[in-house]
Amino acid sequence: MLNELKREAYEANVALPKHGLINLTFGNASAIDRAKGIFAIKPSGVAYADLQPADMVLIDLEGKKVEGKLNPSSDTPTHRRLFLAFADIGGVVHTHSSHATSFAQAGREIPIFGTTHADYFNGNIPVTRKMTVKEISGGAYEWETGNVIVERFKQLDPADFPAVLVNRHAPFTWGKSVAKAVEVAVAVECIAHMALMSLSLEPKLKTIEPELLAKHFKRKHGPGAYYGQPSNC
Amino acid sequence: MLNELKREAYEANVALPKHGLINLTFGNASAIDRAKGIFAIKPSGVAYADLQPADMVLIDLEGKKVEGKLNPSSDTPTHRRLFLAFADIGGVVHTHSSHATSFAQAGREIPIFGTTHADYFNGNIPVTRKMTVKEISGGAYEWETGNVIVERFKQLDPADFPAVLVNRHAPFTWGKSVAKAVEVAVAVECIAHMALMSLSLEPKLKTIEPELLAKHFKRKHGPGAYYGQPSNC
Amino acid sequence: MLNELKREAYEANVALPKHGLINLTFGNASAIDRAKGIFAIKPSGVAYADLQPADMVLIDLEGKKVEGKLNPSSDTPTHRRLFLAFADIGGVVHTHSSHATSFAQAGREIPIFGTTHADYFNGNIPVTRKMTVKEISGGAYEWETGNVIVERFKQLDPADFPAVLVNRHAPFTWGKSVAKAVEVAVAVECIAHMALMSLSLEPKLKTIEPELLAKHFKRKHGPGAYYGQPSNC
Amino acid sequence: MLNELKREAYEANVALPKHGLINLTFGNASAIDRAKGIFAIKPSGVAYADLQPADMVLIDLEGKKVEGKLNPSSDTPTHRRLFLAFADIGGVVHTHSSHATSFAQAGREIPIFGTTHADYFNGNIPVTRKMTVKEISGGAYEWETGNVIVERFKQLDPADFPAVLVNRHAPFTWGKSVAKAVEVAVAVECIAHMALMSLSLEPKLKTIEPELLAKHFKRKHGPGAYYGQPSNC
Repeated sequence: MLNELKREAYEANVALPKHGLINLTFGNASAIDRAKGIFAIKPSGVAYADLQPADMVLIDLEGKKVEGKLNPSSDTPTHRRLFLAFADIGGVVHTHSSHATSFAQAGREIPIFGTTHADYFNGNIPVTRKMTVKEISGGAYEWETGNVIVERFKQLDPADFPAVLVNRHAPFTWGKSVAKAVEVAVAVECIAHMALMSLSLEPKLKTIEPELLAKHFKRKHGPGAYYGQPSNC
Repeated sequence: MLNELKREAYEANVALPKHGLINLTFGNASAIDRAKGIFAIKPSGVAYADLQPADMVLIDLEGKKVEGKLNPSSDTPTHRRLFLAFADIGGVVHTHSSHATSFAQAGREIPIFGTTHADYFNGNIPVTRKMTVKEISGGAYEWETGNVIVERFKQLDPADFPAVLVNRHAPFTWGKSVAKAVEVAVAVECIAHMALMSLSLEPKLKTIEPELLAKHFKRKHGPGAYYGQPSNC
Repeated sequence: MLNELKREAYEANVALPKHGLINLTFGNASAIDRAKGIFAIKPSGVAYADLQPADMVLIDLEGKKVEGKLNPSSDTPTHRRLFLAFADIGGVVHTHSSHATSFAQAGREIPIFGTTHADYFNGNIPVTRKMTVKEISGGAYEWETGNVIVERFKQLDPADFPAVLVNRHAPFTWGKSVAKAVEVAVAVECIAHMALMSLSLEPKLKTIEPELLAKHFKRKHGPGAYYGQPSNC
Repeated sequence: MLNELKREAYEANVALPKHGLINLTFGNASAIDRAKGIFAIKPSGVAYADLQPADMVLIDLEGKKVEGKLNPSSDTPTHRRLFLAFADIGGVVHTHSSHATSFAQAGREIPIFGTTHADYFNGNIPVTRKMTVKEISGGAYEWETGNVIVERFKQLDPADFPAVLVNRHAPFTWGKSVAKAVEVAVAVECIAHMALMSLSLEPKLKTIEPELLAKHFKRKHGPGAYYGQPSNC
């Protein structure tokens, strides 16, 4: 069932190593069918080279496995938490892409220094607070990982900030489709790399001027967007 | 019409991701037919893998679309501004290549530290001033982007400095042909990478001695040039 | 004889340049048959492109060549020392992968800053003490290299720390199989890269909280592991 | 004539971009036939993709073109100077490889921090003094570039130090064959990268202990060498 959804999730998963975002099995992507309340996600610890669309595991929003011979990604509860909290997203991607992860490890937001960043985010890429011992060790670690992300977004619109760094861990990204979440994952890694280098040039570099941020973000988002083709919107 | 021009622009556009200068759709290239006053440019937001020569959009120097089913690049007015101001250039390239963009984000020129740089530029790679709120938000942002570049070149010859960093944004390069502008874009990224590393070794490194700059620049440019083959000139 | 073992060692060796861990001939991999007490190792100084499974050299645990027309890797005594000391390992990999080697050259452990690291190691990646003049020049340099590794592991379980940095030299990794040792070598390089960048962001960054380290390490190791598929364990 | 020599030089030249050492046309390789006193070198400014063995230009040790339709590399007099001064070398390679060039631009030797470096060099990789205005502008710039290299080697054996950084410029490497000079060029770039990172970890890092340097250098060089296969020596 849901072969189209499984293919979408599969294609997003195999795109991650092709974009250089993933080494070994460090990452996963999922796509949701909102009408059915079911998402397709990568099986746990399977090498990307061996992955087939039929290997995708189907999970419902209560966390029950609906279909699949393999165990789903160990990060499945995090994906589920995000699908529940962020009603408009159609896909979630998790990578350990190197430059973005170096910010996550340091517990630092990625500061917005230029228009590449502003084309995707309406400000700094947020980082979660550290998790408590109870959240980590209480038996629902991956679900709690989702919870700290949702907590961080209390005042933020996930459409304005389609990614987060989990403290000490790595980025999660999302979008209207899982293909869009992959695109954001590519952008986050590239933005992180450039921010690191700009900081090495100017350790006290200020973030982008608000008018330039607004201009670039709105070129691509919202009613006045004029980037791309009409059919892209 | 102008199929040869469209092919030239197409080939320059697809060369950009091949050289690692572009992720996703962050960039564009254009080629001009000076006799007709028409340039061919990438359509906006189309993936490089899907691009065809026939997708190139033809624009005249008043900014009117002459041919093309797709919207032109949102940066089209910047290209047009450069074609109007720099009479001898045949092509313009815009990328967000990572190392060069990290200088642009920091609002820093790329200092000329060695002969690789001197083979292409007659000094530091310039950076524009920041744009005003009015320039950004007044409704002609991309045209004004071109204007701040042109302003920066009041005292500079675009043949001596075939690239600029737009402050907070990224590099634009140009050349007699769009293929040459692609070559300069490759050189700028490489030069930026090496300058970053030289600065990490010697934060107060001085720029190259004037006689060595002159020697290398003139090996490749002007009447005494002796690099390459006669037919290359 | 032992064609399957030679093939395993061969495949591990040729995987190293494919993963970008090795330039030229800087590295080697070996696989052991514990029942026979014989290991297969790369011949010395042979280009990876020219390598064939039949070129693998068979060595017994006393260091005698059992089969093979070529000289074994000059690092063979180090591999042998590790096979003797660490009874549960099935393969050893040695690379000069750039980021990990930069820590080794500086005589620094790789500090554990995030969950990517914790997925593989139960703490910092250790570094050996410097070798004495006698160890270096006494005629058994590669064997003594193994000895300083073993000395460093007096208080450490090689299953908890499947890699070491040899001071001034480079990483060695190991695992239940040589394929696993290759995987660890990939992880070490990636972890080293991210640690370097996190340190550039926060020179005094503290290492990961113990509960998060335990959680991630145990997701993948030991009786409570739940990462991957049952058949993977 | 000398088709085998031309093929050797050709193969070395095309290996340079394959190893990631060269962008655009920033580099060249040459191979000498000592008996005939003639060397084959890349033509100037020809794209690597278009290069053919027959394009190699033959030059004698007086600098006269012996055969070839194209202009030889503008760096030909530097190669010639090295072939004259270093009687035992069979090939010369020049690249602008990024990490090595960043040291050259900063006028800094590459300090010897580990065994990877010691496998190839008997100490730091030397850098030339800056050239004088007269050397640069006197009409024999490329020959004078060779002269400052030779001057730097007054007290150094080119077999112990098979590379140099030309101040403000980039590396030159050499070897018994041009293939060996390519190998050294790969090693130099890799060593430079690791030295940069080790310095970022430990800005005051001391160079390698003399006994470890001697051990590694002599494993691969001189009468007691035991690395590789007998036929390799």
